Amino acid sequence: MSLDAVLARIDADLEAATGRLFELLRIPSISTDPAFAGDVRRAAEWLRDDLAAMGFAAEVHDTPGHPMVVGHMDGPGPHLLFYGHYDVQPVDPLSLWDRDPFDPEIQDTPKGRVIRGRGAADDKGQLMTFLEACRAILAVEGALPCKVTVFLEGEEESGSPSLVPYLKERGEALKADLALICDTGLFSDDVPAIVTQLRGLLGEELTITGPRIDLHSGSYGGMAMNPIRVLSRILGNLHDADGRVQVPGFYDDVEELAPELKAQWDGLGFDEAAFLGEVGLSVPSGEAGRTGLERLWSRPTAEVNGIWGGYTGAGFKTVLPSKASAKVSFRLVAKQDPLKLREAFRAWVRAQLPADCTVEFHGHGASPASRMDISHPAFEIARRALSQEWPGEAAFTGAGGSIPVAGYFKEILGMDSMLAGFGKDDDAIHSPNEKYDLSSFHRGMRAWARVLDGVAQG
Amino acid sequence: MSLDAVLARIDADLEAATGRLFELLRIPSISTDPAFAGDVRRAAEWLRDDLAAMGFAAEVHDTPGHPMVVGHMDGPGPHLLFYGHYDVQPVDPLSLWDRDPFDPEIQDTPKGRVIRGRGAADDKGQLMTFLEACRAILAVEGALPCKVTVFLEGEEESGSPSLVPYLKERGEALKADLALICDTGLFSDDVPAIVTQLRGLLGEELTITGPRIDLHSGSYGGMAMNPIRVLSRILGNLHDADGRVQVPGFYDDVEELAPELKAQWDGLGFDEAAFLGEVGLSVPSGEAGRTGLERLWSRPTAEVNGIWGGYTGAGFKTVLPSKASAKVSFRLVAKQDPLKLREAFRAWVRAQLPADCTVEFHGHGASPASRMDISHPAFEIARRALSQEWPGEAAFTGAGGSIPVAGYFKEILGMDSMLAGFGKDDDAIHSPNEKYDLSSFHRGMRAWARVLDGVAQG
Repeated sequence: MSLDAVLARIDADLEAATGRLFELLRIPSISTDPAFAGDVRRAAEWLRDDLAAMGFAAEVHDTPGHPMVVGHMDGPGPHLLFYGHYDVQPVDPLSLWDRDPFDPEIQDTPKGRVIRGRGAADDKGQLMTFLEACRAILAVEGALPCKVTVFLEGEEESGSPSLVPYLKERGEALKADLALICDTGLFSDDVPAIVTQLRGLLGEELTITGPRIDLHSGSYGGMAMNPIRVLSRILGNLHDADGRVQVPGFYDDVEELAPELKAQWDGLGFDEAAFLGEVGLSVPSGEAGRTGLERLWSRPTAEVNGIWGGYTGAGFKTVLPSKASAKVSFRLVAKQDPLKLREAFRAWVRAQLPADCTVEFHGHGASPASRMDISHPAFEIARRALSQEWPGEAAFTGAGGSIPVAGYFKEILGMDSMLAGFGKDDDAIHSPNEKYDLSSFHRGMRAWARVLDGVAQG
Repeated sequence: MSLDAVLARIDADLEAATGRLFELLRIPSISTDPAFAGDVRRAAEWLRDDLAAMGFAAEVHDTPGHPMVVGHMDGPGPHLLFYGHYDVQPVDPLSLWDRDPFDPEIQDTPKGRVIRGRGAADDKGQLMTFLEACRAILAVEGALPCKVTVFLEGEEESGSPSLVPYLKERGEALKADLALICDTGLFSDDVPAIVTQLRGLLGEELTITGPRIDLHSGSYGGMAMNPIRVLSRILGNLHDADGRVQVPGFYDDVEELAPELKAQWDGLGFDEAAFLGEVGLSVPSGEAGRTGLERLWSRPTAEVNGIWGGYTGAGFKTVLPSKASAKVSFRLVAKQDPLKLREAFRAWVRAQLPADCTVEFHGHGASPASRMDISHPAFEIARRALSQEWPGEAAFTGAGGSIPVAGYFKEILGMDSMLAGFGKDDDAIHSPNEKYDLSSFHRGMRAWARVLDGVAQG
């Protein structure tokens, strides 16, 4: 294919491509909150229609949860599966947003032009880079150089409950030579990254109950068990003074980083001070005696993502509450088994419960860490392609976030994945005022066009 | 006065008295939530009008917060000040109420007839026992046997911010020979109580801030400080293994119970198992090596009344939050100084803050413990009066809840208080499905008529 013509087409079409992304960003497809189920479906249908307009054989597939969007287009070269997700995180606290999270706009910032809005970076803007690359190739060439299947999920931000059943039932149709997953970021503003290892995720919710009903802290204080105190003590014990997780057996299946990879990571010159400074911090927390990139990419963590109990409204209420709850998540690495650790965590909590307290657990998704086999030529092709679009050489890196789908593709479909994405550390994904750099959106499209061209040539 | 005629009038008028109480209970006078300010005022005006209808010189006095209701009526005997509060606690969680908290009704229960609704016991039902006693005396005698001033507050459930300024500015008009405070309970179903010592209360709210914004726990977990973890660890340290509060100096001004009072309390045969069993508990928490009544009446406590941070909605959000908050309160005894302990608590928290975390404090009211001088003849008169209305002998007891107004009357007006109330442990004050026994309402009116008669005769 004529790559230069395709890249020129991408450049010329940028404004229209941004407009198309805005249409998708205006749909509040928050998957974790049932109130938005209808919007999640609208987003799926918008994507199906966009794929169909390009000539893909596109369908919305229902699941017990939110639907999957699948599009197929034949081509001469190898078969590539592209994965992205069209659902987004909740927007609370809404008060911290500068504008309506679902009314996107281009904003000029000291660091360049950005697309502001929930989902701009995670993951609508990213998945559209690939669709726009296909659109440009089709406009110029009338066909794609490879066989392409697009697979878009609507439950990534809520633990992907339907993904595994769907892959087991209908995954054959998605099976390709390689999966391309676009839900990661650049290593730094100038250095693109291809992620070759990802942490897994285990999510747990626990509710501790003490008294049968809320009590008056004057009438009962000193005699009745307070579940907030119990929950606080247990969560306060989750880490030791060195930041190590205290759940028995937690580190059993953790492996040390391979020396050559550690050397490569150390060579990246990760600026801890700048990374933390961005978010108003200066001292790395977490495990003592580890580099920043180890803490983020190759070491497991435990975090409390939410806690609530008693009276949390305006003013004061002298209540001794009946219940206290928390949402806890673990980032997993190497061979850590999420289900084994779920049981270990629950046993560890139960062992600390005083008399008269009960605990209920609710699991919120569990996925192991994953590591890619980078022997497939596409990895080097992509590394070159990204290096041509950004100032710095692309690097093979790790990622702290979990992208369970990569593990499922391997487990269920025996398919390797290549993770390339263009987000930045300051995109504020999952936070108020999420944004995606216009340069990421633009370079991303161009990079995918190069990758498709390169893979077709083999 | 003809006591028998007055008591007969009270008996005959019970249904009408209940109807009047229902009118007051239907007004949602939640003082801690600004959204209900108009309803709090409506309750004040309802009481002013009811007092005026009886012939009291009654007024609503504005404050910077919620208004005070004051009514005066002359009489031959000593001057008595009656205090109650017409504001109520919030009703959340509303889902746990069997009916609209502000649509009261009489319900038949295995333990007798009860008035169900927010404020039935705390404190609208209680304050109406005194007003109804006055109404009956006036109906029969045309005058009261004592000079009576009624003083009703609308901020008791929200820390009484306007009370001290009001007493300093206009307290002279309230100065009486003795204050009668009706906001306490029976010792047991059959044994009435006159409270002669009360715990104080110190309320604190703290917010710990880590990162400048909410972060993705995958992208930052292992590097960024999580304020929920910090808050949990600090609150988990609030008590030692023996249930003693760890704030330095907390016990400095705590005194041991006088042996004779301890003997009297031990003689009450407090049934810890039944007290805890009522609320689904079996093991006393709190300080080791203390009796149940000591823990409730003469020992200080610290409790977490509310905690919140991160994502607390449906589903899961892998957020590493910027802030985490808690509401903490301390029950104070003997000579513990609330303001000194507020500073000690804040210093203790600050001393445990890691680098990169900041804390903000907001004070929610501070009142010392108080002890009554029971040499005033009204105490023995009241003990006899209550003993005539309930099966058991009335006892001089303590109370775990704080009624700061008693301390303020002493400090600011040099006036002693007598606390007599008719609530029960299972009234669920501050909880869903609050109730007040119809027998408490009825016997309470009769008891106040006896007290007014007795005090008049001296």
